[in-house]
Amino acid sequence: MNAIGVDVGGTKIGAGVVTPEGEILNEVRYPTAAGRERLISSIAQAVVESRDEYEVGGVCLSVPGTVLSAENKVIDAPNLHAIEGIPLKDELEERTGLTATVENDANAAAWGEFRFGMGSEVDHLIFLTLGTGVGGGVISHGILLRGAQGAGGELGHVTIQATGPRCACGNHGCLEALASGTAIARRAREVASEKPDSALGRRAVERKVLGEDVTELARGGDAAALEVLEETGTWLGIGLAGFVNVFNPEAIAIGGGVARAGNLILDAARREVRLRATSPGRDLVKIKGATLGAESGVLGAGALARDESGEYVLGS
Amino acid sequence: MNAIGVDVGGTKIGAGVVTPEGEILNEVRYPTAAGRERLISSIAQAVVESRDEYEVGGVCLSVPGTVLSAENKVIDAPNLHAIEGIPLKDELEERTGLTATVENDANAAAWGEFRFGMGSEVDHLIFLTLGTGVGGGVISHGILLRGAQGAGGELGHVTIQATGPRCACGNHGCLEALASGTAIARRAREVASEKPDSALGRRAVERKVLGEDVTELARGGDAAALEVLEETGTWLGIGLAGFVNVFNPEAIAIGGGVARAGNLILDAARREVRLRATSPGRDLVKIKGATLGAESGVLGAGALARDESGEYVLGS
Repeated sequence: MNAIGVDVGGTKIGAGVVTPEGEILNEVRYPTAAGRERLISSIAQAVVESRDEYEVGGVCLSVPGTVLSAENKVIDAPNLHAIEGIPLKDELEERTGLTATVENDANAAAWGEFRFGMGSEVDHLIFLTLGTGVGGGVISHGILLRGAQGAGGELGHVTIQATGPRCACGNHGCLEALASGTAIARRAREVASEKPDSALGRRAVERKVLGEDVTELARGGDAAALEVLEETGTWLGIGLAGFVNVFNPEAIAIGGGVARAGNLILDAARREVRLRATSPGRDLVKIKGATLGAESGVLGAGALARDESGEYVLGS
Repeated sequence: MNAIGVDVGGTKIGAGVVTPEGEILNEVRYPTAAGRERLISSIAQAVVESRDEYEVGGVCLSVPGTVLSAENKVIDAPNLHAIEGIPLKDELEERTGLTATVENDANAAAWGEFRFGMGSEVDHLIFLTLGTGVGGGVISHGILLRGAQGAGGELGHVTIQATGPRCACGNHGCLEALASGTAIARRAREVASEKPDSALGRRAVERKVLGEDVTELARGGDAAALEVLEETGTWLGIGLAGFVNVFNPEAIAIGGGVARAGNLILDAARREVRLRATSPGRDLVKIKGATLGAESGVLGAGALARDESGEYVLGS
């Protein structure tokens, strides 16, 4: 059966009817409205408009924050405070007549990759999204690991270097503090000042260097930019090695803006996993770029809306 | 139904009939025999003897090494090399007439705590055993997370300080390298030489300090020994904070010899989890000593033998 997936982001809302085969029909997009009532109205409108005449089994919202599963409520959304505390399930069900659930965005994207992307052949998948921050989702034995309250899967907030740089979460040396786009930009500015004659150094004189600059300059062969990505990949691999030992996954899918650097980061990460993780898990795991890109939120949420209704059976 | 749990250790083999209520009937113990054939014979003998006249549904072996679930085979057992590569399932089934499975010892103990110990009221439990090394097991959504090959749950081998001391696994800065009994003894010898006038310093002159010495001296109020345990607890908490963010568990059970230090270690670990883990998971989780002690292997294996046969339903 079809179901509706909604990707609620800090700047835009996307909704679409997701088929069991992973096609998105009738996708609609709105800018994310400010304010509580306008936000919930525009989400409901996107759902109704996307649904149109399709028969659908339910709707799931992918939201950028910490979700309490039992209440289908967001309790902490740094980039979308207006959504915090809204009884989303009740509001959505009332306004659309559909059964509604709410899921953390990285968990939903992980489920999208698991059902329709690079995890579709496996039962054990780790998904990481490397952007401004680092989000994650874990599918183990075919189950999305939400944990007791729905707050699980926060793979960006494991400590890999306790004496490392401060993280946005307040902690020190989290994977996010060492392998996010923000971490790349910070490290790039340090390396730029150490190597002013490099292309990275010259770019830093022109303007504030961002993660994208590093990838672009590394592609052009700049040794300083390559060094930053290599170092980032090493930190990423240190985190991944731990996940390999804990979850023994078949595949790790890396998404988000940073993943556009591809093997410039992933080669170092793979090397570190081979060095640090234990056998046989390190030999089994495939580490690759995620395949669904910006669609993963709608696809994952749509798949969750259907699968959670009991239609999905592990291995099917 | 009853089932037989066998705890195969480096020095002794324990077997018993485990009831659905978590009682052990007819427990037998043998020293662990050297050599492949004598080892498998003595395991089979322990099973037959313990079974006696009881009706049992199967047998599960808890083994100290990396298990390949699909083959019910141990591929790496540092303290019991004789067991490596034996087709344990086939051998046991042939010699006892019972359905047999094989599980990593920390995973089996985790399942024991989950069914009969401090996890019996929860669906999400982390179990850590702190001894010479650090073993672990994770139950999430009522499922034992073995991973794709059965090698999952290696919680001792996540990096928490990449530039930290070398671990027995070859890696650097694993939780095991910082919070095991071995790590405590190493750190105690360093602190002893820095503080020769402390009770710890004086003990170090008498003989090579072990983990137990540190606990004993800390109980007696020695500041140097207390410092070592406080530091160990802090490292432990850094690792646990990551597990809280990843698994959002209701409870964490700490077993093994080091856990005998109790709150001398756990208070620092709890403080670190409150500081480092994110809300709401950090407020939910209870961190306590495991309750089953040396029985956890037989109990967990016995419970697995029954539960894996399909009798166990989550929440029952």
